[in-house]
Amino acid sequence: MELMIPLDGSEKRPLYEQIYQYIKDEIRRGRLKAGERLPSTRLLADNLKISRCTTQMAYEQLLSEGYIESIPCKGYFVAGIEELVQMKREAEPGLVFHQEKKEKGPDIDFSPRGVDLERFPFNTWRKITKNTLVDDNKEMFAAGDPQGEYGLRAAVGDYLHTARGVHVRPEQIIIGAGSEYLWLLLAQILGGRRRMAMENPTYKQAYRVFSGIGMEVVPVSMDANGMRPGELEESGADVAYVMPGHQYPAGIVMPVKRRQELLGWAVSGEDRYLIEDDYDSEFRYKGKPIPSLQGMDTAGRVIYIGTFSKSIAPAIRVGYLALPEKLLGVYREKAGFYASTVSRIDQNILYQFMIQGHYERHLNRMRAVYKTKHDGLLAGLRGLEDIFEIRGEHAGLHVLLTHKGGMGEDELVKRAAEAGVKVYGLSGALIGPDPGIFASTLLLGYGRLSLEEIREGTKRLNAVWR
Amino acid sequence: MELMIPLDGSEKRPLYEQIYQYIKDEIRRGRLKAGERLPSTRLLADNLKISRCTTQMAYEQLLSEGYIESIPCKGYFVAGIEELVQMKREAEPGLVFHQEKKEKGPDIDFSPRGVDLERFPFNTWRKITKNTLVDDNKEMFAAGDPQGEYGLRAAVGDYLHTARGVHVRPEQIIIGAGSEYLWLLLAQILGGRRRMAMENPTYKQAYRVFSGIGMEVVPVSMDANGMRPGELEESGADVAYVMPGHQYPAGIVMPVKRRQELLGWAVSGEDRYLIEDDYDSEFRYKGKPIPSLQGMDTAGRVIYIGTFSKSIAPAIRVGYLALPEKLLGVYREKAGFYASTVSRIDQNILYQFMIQGHYERHLNRMRAVYKTKHDGLLAGLRGLEDIFEIRGEHAGLHVLLTHKGGMGEDELVKRAAEAGVKVYGLSGALIGPDPGIFASTLLLGYGRLSLEEIREGTKRLNAVWR
Repeated sequence: MELMIPLDGSEKRPLYEQIYQYIKDEIRRGRLKAGERLPSTRLLADNLKISRCTTQMAYEQLLSEGYIESIPCKGYFVAGIEELVQMKREAEPGLVFHQEKKEKGPDIDFSPRGVDLERFPFNTWRKITKNTLVDDNKEMFAAGDPQGEYGLRAAVGDYLHTARGVHVRPEQIIIGAGSEYLWLLLAQILGGRRRMAMENPTYKQAYRVFSGIGMEVVPVSMDANGMRPGELEESGADVAYVMPGHQYPAGIVMPVKRRQELLGWAVSGEDRYLIEDDYDSEFRYKGKPIPSLQGMDTAGRVIYIGTFSKSIAPAIRVGYLALPEKLLGVYREKAGFYASTVSRIDQNILYQFMIQGHYERHLNRMRAVYKTKHDGLLAGLRGLEDIFEIRGEHAGLHVLLTHKGGMGEDELVKRAAEAGVKVYGLSGALIGPDPGIFASTLLLGYGRLSLEEIREGTKRLNAVWR
Repeated sequence: MELMIPLDGSEKRPLYEQIYQYIKDEIRRGRLKAGERLPSTRLLADNLKISRCTTQMAYEQLLSEGYIESIPCKGYFVAGIEELVQMKREAEPGLVFHQEKKEKGPDIDFSPRGVDLERFPFNTWRKITKNTLVDDNKEMFAAGDPQGEYGLRAAVGDYLHTARGVHVRPEQIIIGAGSEYLWLLLAQILGGRRRMAMENPTYKQAYRVFSGIGMEVVPVSMDANGMRPGELEESGADVAYVMPGHQYPAGIVMPVKRRQELLGWAVSGEDRYLIEDDYDSEFRYKGKPIPSLQGMDTAGRVIYIGTFSKSIAPAIRVGYLALPEKLLGVYREKAGFYASTVSRIDQNILYQFMIQGHYERHLNRMRAVYKTKHDGLLAGLRGLEDIFEIRGEHAGLHVLLTHKGGMGEDELVKRAAEAGVKVYGLSGALIGPDPGIFASTLLLGYGRLSLEEIREGTKRLNAVWR
């Protein structure tokens, strides 16, 4: 068989590629049929008046992609086309990676979960990523340690020790793709027959995951210092999920005395555990931070959980779980065989970001940024202090506003919306009866807003809430 | 206060950075105390005989990192150091990201789960990664679609349709960080009160996850065509987990008739489902591939699950779950609030890899590579055909060897080990009583081995198994 391949010497593509492409297209279109014999590389080179090296390169490429087969002493043959994967080269018209919902939102959104991405150290991240993928470190693509790479666990442990007073060996840390996954893992480690106490109100996402997998969740009310120990004791729970650093959504920073009471509860029953969710402990603007509950625990009863979603970016799907020593055996037996949910490449990027000091710099920079926003929000709300009580300030990324006259949450939200401002009622975070202290209360987050937006937003709230 | 900052004009670091570093170090060492006032930028510039612009830049940097505070009309003050995160800059001595276990392994390891990473298109992956992070696409770092980005879901759906005959809309696909996570998610969608039938033997990892979360799992035996429909019916199961494409570990390709029987089982009971794990369907070396079970299903009873771990690399922690339409509502209600476990950046890299045609090329290249290894293994085993039966060939990345004389699995494994060759007994994959047809059977995987290693390995096996 003779192949008439139209070669174009003036084209940018090398000749071997033109030959490769031509034959490939002929096979795909079915004009060269499975089993058909191709001319030898020598014959084809003679016919086309080109070097044999060129035809050999083209055939090599076709061989490597499975379009043709070589049978020793016999020659080259077209492979069975139906065995080849063929994908539509073009995606659907208009298909884009990310479909942004173009609904018209409020002008100013005080979302309590928003994060400032404007200051994300984009160039540093890109540089580290590039360096992670240089050279021949193909090992990055092999399966890694199920618990997370040792170096990253050590760096996380080091950070938690210095910044949060957490006492933990790298062996106790599990890296996972976000809080939800780590909660699922934790539920398996704790076992099914548990009763879990959660603060009321609490972070609804955690409540939904734990109750969704069939765990019995009991709401326990809070006073101004956090979860009530007496009620916890009466609840019959053997696990308590708490956020002592800055409770979401109540904004309460749990004082040392209450922490000790909770630790007392934990040690006074067999197999009782406290889960400490330290979700936004990085941001505190006043006074000496209280070390973590985990750091105060000498009996191995605190499970510590945290994430980089707030401190770096929500898209960094990395969180960490620090288990007490005596749960390590249970973890290895029940869930140690789970492959890591974070790719080794992403783990290495984060590891470099931490050990090169970028994380520390970024946190300090963001604390200054958020403090400015926090102060701007409080300044903007000053004119409302006679009718609103402000709580939960000086830490985290949101504050609470309670209407002293008892105006309904819905009414306050509605009035704000009419001025193009979105605020959030606290009641959505309740998981049991409202204990009263959270009535007429709103959540105002400032993480994602600019200082200008905070000023404009509070100006409008001053106008509509009077 | 006067600051005596030793500046070095010959140094590579710019002057402003030297000032910034000096003051920062003084604060960290406690020599500049919280609340202490710094000289104005003008005064410091005069003292150091440098431009005011330089001192302003240094102060800006300190401000942005939270080391100093600016109080309007009053000046600059040292911030409270205890509020700053400080991490140990140096990691522990000898700390490395990845601790490779340096145990002396066998010379040649026929691991049935090994994957060839030598041909991973490293440069392409790096290039796409770099392009993903160019410009100002900071939106990559924002939280994404919980189900996975629409574009990637569409590309996966498109691939599954073309390559596996799967009929699925992007709305039915969920992207997740690996099989284990998707199994956990699936268990929640299916609900707790399920009895799941699994092939015996099966992929132990799946068995451990499902039984570990408290699902009742019943083993159902296989004949030469796969799971026995009669036994499935009798088992009382309402979900069946099957691998019709190339059963692991039995290597059985389920014929069309058996697939229809299983679909018949599914539609004959209310709320019955088949889970099709198409884990290595990409690799088939002979004959026309049988389309997926999902593609034959017209009643919406097949849940399809797959991963890129084998077809791209184990470290790419991305898998996909395709739900029947009628389970979508349940998913949204029970698990739709779970944030995605795969970062948007990684999703975009994979999306580009697919729509630019690299995935197709890679698959075709790898199929040719694995076929060569597969053929090499069969050629190497030819001399043993009188004493071993070979099964499960022509697809996937492993074959089965059954000793006709009934020599024990342990004895065969031991003899191989003495020659520095690791082979795997099938019995480890049993989840119920051995039905007999898998006695004296070994698994030999060839994915990770070179052709030379396969030749040497089979040569040694020929010597020790006779």
